[in-house]
Amino acid sequence: MNYKINFNSTFANRGMGLENDINETNKYYNKYNIALIYKKPTPIRISKVDYKNMKITDGFFEAPSTLDYNGIYKGKYIEFDAKETKNKTSFPISNIHRHQIDYVRKLLEHQGIVFLIIRFSSLNKDYLLRGEDLISFLNLEDRKSIPIDYFKEKGYLLELRYAPRLDYLKIVDKYLL
Amino acid sequence: MNYKINFNSTFANRGMGLENDINETNKYYNKYNIALIYKKPTPIRISKVDYKNMKITDGFFEAPSTLDYNGIYKGKYIEFDAKETKNKTSFPISNIHRHQIDYVRKLLEHQGIVFLIIRFSSLNKDYLLRGEDLISFLNLEDRKSIPIDYFKEKGYLLELRYAPRLDYLKIVDKYLL
Repeated sequence: MNYKINFNSTFANRGMGLENDINETNKYYNKYNIALIYKKPTPIRISKVDYKNMKITDGFFEAPSTLDYNGIYKGKYIEFDAKETKNKTSFPISNIHRHQIDYVRKLLEHQGIVFLIIRFSSLNKDYLLRGEDLISFLNLEDRKSIPIDYFKEKGYLLELRYAPRLDYLKIVDKYLL
Repeated sequence: MNYKINFNSTFANRGMGLENDINETNKYYNKYNIALIYKKPTPIRISKVDYKNMKITDGFFEAPSTLDYNGIYKGKYIEFDAKETKNKTSFPISNIHRHQIDYVRKLLEHQGIVFLIIRFSSLNKDYLLRGEDLISFLNLEDRKSIPIDYFKEKGYLLELRYAPRLDYLKIVDKYLL
C-alpha cells in the first residue's frame, strides 16, 4: 500500500523521501532507547463502517490541525513537522496550514520543543527551524515565503548520515533544550 | 457518526461515557490554556483508496500499541489510557494489550507522566493509577486482574464535577510531577 501511494499519487508523494528519512531516524532513536517519537496517524473522517466485519467502507482524509510527529525526549514534549520543497530560494508558507501555525504558538506557550524540518530537495539541504523563529518571521514579515537566507541565518543544517539518518536530536540537545 | 457508533455497536460503545468525560475535560484544559492533550486517532490500516476523490473505500481498525491520549503539560510529556469496567471487585488486565504495557515501561524510562484512568461504572468510581504502580503490580503479582483494593491503596480517586468534568491534572500536580 505504501508502495502504491508512493508511486501512483502525486498527492501522497509530496515529502515522502524526507518522511522516510525521519521514520528511519525515529526507529533508530526508539531502538537505542534515545527517544520515543512517532508519526501521528493521518486524521481520517470515517463515514461508513461495515460493523459485521469491522471494516471501514467509506472515509475521507482530513487536513491536519497539529504537526505530524510528536513524542518524548528526556521527559520533555517534542513536536515537529517535516516539509519538502523543490524551490531553491525560499519555502512557501502555504505549505503550512493556518491551524498548524496557531498550534505552534500554543505549543510554545506550553514550553514544548517545537520545530520544522525543511528539505530543499533541489539543493540537497535539510534545515531545522525552531518554532520560535518560524513565529517571529511570521510576526515581522508579510511575505508568502521564507527566503533560504533566513534558514541559513536562523536555522540549523542537518547532515544526512547512515544511522541515524537525520540526527535532529543532536540539534535539539545543543540549541533547543 | 459518533452517535451511530455510540448506540449501534457494542464494540465501539465500550468506555464511551468515560471517553466523553475525558474529551470534555481536555477541551476545558485547552480552552483555559492549562494543557494540550488530545485523543489519538484510532489507528487504521487503509487498504483501498479512490484517488480521484481522495476517499478511503476499504480500511480496517488496528489494535493500538500505545495509549489513547497524549499531550503536553508544563513542558512535560503526558500519556494515559482510560478504561471502563462493570466489574465491582477488580479490573481485568486483559483490557490492556501486551504492547501497551511494554510501551508504558518505555515511557517511564523516558520520564514520561504515565497513568491509567479506570472507571468502575457499577460503583460510580474513577481511579487514576500511576504507570509505576501498574508496572509494579504486574511485576509482583501473577493475576489476571487488579483487585479494587489495590486502586484504593495506590490509586487516586477522581471526582466527577461540572467543569472540568474529571480534573485529573490536579492529581498529576500533586502526586505525579
